[in-house]
Amino acid sequence: MIQEHINAEDAYAPPWQFNHAVKVTEGTSMIFMSALAGYEPDGTLNESDIVAQGEAAFENMKKVVEAAGGTVADIVKTTVYIRQDFRENSAALRAVRSRYFTKNFPASTLIQVAGFANPEYLIQIEAIAVIG
Amino acid sequence: MIQEHINAEDAYAPPWQFNHAVKVTEGTSMIFMSALAGYEPDGTLNESDIVAQGEAAFENMKKVVEAAGGTVADIVKTTVYIRQDFRENSAALRAVRSRYFTKNFPASTLIQVAGFANPEYLIQIEAIAVIG
Amino acid sequence: MIQEHINAEDAYAPPWQFNHAVKVTEGTSMIFMSALAGYEPDGTLNESDIVAQGEAAFENMKKVVEAAGGTVADIVKTTVYIRQDFRENSAALRAVRSRYFTKNFPASTLIQVAGFANPEYLIQIEAIAVIG
Repeated sequence: MIQEHINAEDAYAPPWQFNHAVKVTEGTSMIFMSALAGYEPDGTLNESDIVAQGEAAFENMKKVVEAAGGTVADIVKTTVYIRQDFRENSAALRAVRSRYFTKNFPASTLIQVAGFANPEYLIQIEAIAVIG
Repeated sequence: MIQEHINAEDAYAPPWQFNHAVKVTEGTSMIFMSALAGYEPDGTLNESDIVAQGEAAFENMKKVVEAAGGTVADIVKTTVYIRQDFRENSAALRAVRSRYFTKNFPASTLIQVAGFANPEYLIQIEAIAVIG
Repeated sequence: MIQEHINAEDAYAPPWQFNHAVKVTEGTSMIFMSALAGYEPDGTLNESDIVAQGEAAFENMKKVVEAAGGTVADIVKTTVYIRQDFRENSAALRAVRSRYFTKNFPASTLIQVAGFANPEYLIQIEAIAVIG
């Protein structure tokens, strides 16, 4: 399986770790993940701290892709859903993300939503991985 | 085509019908669905009832995957977009979902959005299916 | 690679260019795009005009799929995220979309979000393409 990072030279790219797109060729297994919340292993949520929930959600994402037989390097797309304004916490959340994605940056979407299934969630992360 | 449900034992899972991820191997056809609204077959919308719109949207999802040659059991990922607070209607909407997904629970995301293309929509459902 | 447009005759379809779903068979390359903002080639954003940002975002989507070796006709799914009420600008944004998708209408989702990573974004577009 070839995972190729696509960046169009003639399309603007923001100045952070980012790929415009990820191209996957001859993939043989695709993993579609649910949006994962920031639950700690004991099922608790740090209700007032989006960064703590983000760390737990990224850790859950790692555990899930590993349970599927892959690694975080196999993740080709993430969608990060946040509940509150991103600006205040953007540097801290990007630092968390950088601990998980060090080279193979997935295609990435981040949006602020109006709410989640559980009002205590501040962030959820979903991902698609391709293992070849 | 093998559809495998992935649950990481060391990542918290909520206490409802849920899979952390779905892994698809050797799939040969993928179906990408539009977000489907809760239109009744005659093109009307039950404007004030999210559960009725949800039932119609799940039914449309079923019709679309069948039009593509599959069944609801081939759906590997759903994203449910809702317009209003989920809590009041969560039990009723989960009961609707349970009528469509009885064994093969897709990877699932639910978010509350700020609005839809049509202000009368209360819910939209999109899905990815893999038919092998 | 066969790209087939699926429309369930017994599910309501809205009266605009739309497919209920897109089915892709024997695809060999999948491109997962990030949500692309409406940056002009020089990195500026037209801060007050969602239609101008939409034009730039669709143009970026085109550049990115071409950088991956495809064309806009290879795009099978789009998700359009908008920041503000859609009604006022829906005709103008659909006209922009029609310049990019003239025959192969991708499966499409449009939602209004509560915010983006950058508060100046009014629209972002993400896409999945399959090149066969």
